[in-house]
Amino acid sequence: MEPILNFAQLTAHLKKLNHRKRIAVVCANDPNTEYAISRALEEGIAEFLMIGDSTILKKYPTLKQYPEYVKTIHIENPDEAAREAVRIVREGGADILMKGIINTDNLLHAILDKEKGLLPKGKILTHLAVMEIPTYHKLLFFSDAAVIPRPTLQQRIEMIWYAICTCRHFGIEQPRVALIHCTEKVSAKFPHSLDYVNIVELAEAGEFGNVIIDGPLDVRTACEQASGDIKGIVSPINGQADVLIFPNIESGNAFYKSVSLFAQAEMAGLLQGPICPVVLPSRSDSGLSKYYSIAMACLQVSGDCKCRKQVSQVTGSSF
Amino acid sequence: MEPILNFAQLTAHLKKLNHRKRIAVVCANDPNTEYAISRALEEGIAEFLMIGDSTILKKYPTLKQYPEYVKTIHIENPDEAAREAVRIVREGGADILMKGIINTDNLLHAILDKEKGLLPKGKILTHLAVMEIPTYHKLLFFSDAAVIPRPTLQQRIEMIWYAICTCRHFGIEQPRVALIHCTEKVSAKFPHSLDYVNIVELAEAGEFGNVIIDGPLDVRTACEQASGDIKGIVSPINGQADVLIFPNIESGNAFYKSVSLFAQAEMAGLLQGPICPVVLPSRSDSGLSKYYSIAMACLQVSGDCKCRKQVSQVTGSSF
Repeated sequence: MEPILNFAQLTAHLKKLNHRKRIAVVCANDPNTEYAISRALEEGIAEFLMIGDSTILKKYPTLKQYPEYVKTIHIENPDEAAREAVRIVREGGADILMKGIINTDNLLHAILDKEKGLLPKGKILTHLAVMEIPTYHKLLFFSDAAVIPRPTLQQRIEMIWYAICTCRHFGIEQPRVALIHCTEKVSAKFPHSLDYVNIVELAEAGEFGNVIIDGPLDVRTACEQASGDIKGIVSPINGQADVLIFPNIESGNAFYKSVSLFAQAEMAGLLQGPICPVVLPSRSDSGLSKYYSIAMACLQVSGDCKCRKQVSQVTGSSF
Repeated sequence: MEPILNFAQLTAHLKKLNHRKRIAVVCANDPNTEYAISRALEEGIAEFLMIGDSTILKKYPTLKQYPEYVKTIHIENPDEAAREAVRIVREGGADILMKGIINTDNLLHAILDKEKGLLPKGKILTHLAVMEIPTYHKLLFFSDAAVIPRPTLQQRIEMIWYAICTCRHFGIEQPRVALIHCTEKVSAKFPHSLDYVNIVELAEAGEFGNVIIDGPLDVRTACEQASGDIKGIVSPINGQADVLIFPNIESGNAFYKSVSLFAQAEMAGLLQGPICPVVLPSRSDSGLSKYYSIAMACLQVSGDCKCRKQVSQVTGSSF
């Protein structure tokens, strides 16, 4: 397939697949979530199981236009609604889990429950996002701006795996993964830069398959060839990064918040690690961003790639 | 004075002052530095003492147009040139120090020399930068994207002092300083967020004078009112930040590199702490950015503010 370069192409690709993914939404009850759901219904990419206060359908009549693709389960207590949604996903009744206006911690509590939750033992919970930046020539994936404060080497390796798998779903055959730091120098003062050396060695040994991984690099050198040229930095990333792996949550978050605000980028983001992708938007995410996150999740559970098979084997999940 | 809102107004303000500051440049020997110096000469804001290989004047004939404002000291060895520039600044022969193409570490070595350097005992060396972002309505100062990896509470307080003093020079009467984090929540998991509580208390007690300091806040909430409104965050910063204080160098650097690249922002930056501002550009900085850094330094040593007096008292320096 041709690489998907922007969110419009993502929607077009999903429409061509012509297969609605089933999304369990917990406590959808705000205009932005309603916009996202309506849009996904209209584009024909998803169907919804709305778990929560079912009076929402009365409040948002646009949802009524697709009665065959919207089912409701009326549960007023948000914690109970979360547990029920998780149970349904575990039993294969939904492909994707999505948060409405329930408190993030409460939904995470249900997801992380050791007996009845969605995170298989030993799997790492992390956040993967993608931005369409008007001044960049393709989509830019990044991790982790929201969940892991200071990733360990093992966590970084998992973050990279999720990003690579997702790139494959987006049709990127040889993803270019930049390990971000302030400079290109490795130093014991910055333990993550030592991790990067290990990761680059693993990549060179073929551990991650057909990818290019390099770092430490700064954001500019990762995304702009001229910057590397001026500094005399020779990197196979060559200003063409598909993925930025940030050293810590503060830098990932500063990147995400500042580029979305000042470069007017649109964003999609998902929790990775659970047996299905989880759409867990921020309160301040736009309706469009919530829709793009749904679309990203639909793509992740469409088709198949070697990485995804590996995850399924580990979890024993059915997709 | 009216606040200076962009770099064009900064140049206009300096031209009105009609007083050239003297800048000692170590090893000026590249086209971007030459552009910056020529521009500063042309605008009438600075005069230059070029210390290094004096054949540069032959290579860059535009500098010859201002013989009365360009003096040269021929020293071929870069380390010797650095030591000589530092000596001249110590003796009051220059107001500002600027790096040409000498290696940063070599110049820092001369600046940090305990006997003959420029950093008074007990002063903290840090980096303060300012960006003109096309999508923001005023200049945005930030620290520290380049020097201190993980600031202590005392270092953060000093960083804030430098930013406030500089804001005053830019005509900002009541600077709004946002202490940046991923969220607005204070947590022991993130020690800098505990520092922020201390700093906000100091500010509320009037320790920093007429300023507004708040945090933890994310970049979006600091710079966009709508974002805070949606999240229900009531902060006196109110989307109007003048200064962003970053938790660590990785986040400050990610902000600087991504906003300069993706939002096409122009940047100026200086080392703070030494007895004079030090223009210490990155290799990849544009000629324009180097010129703006010169202009920022000229403004810092123009006029007077209480903060600056305080610094002079501490150092015993003459300006």
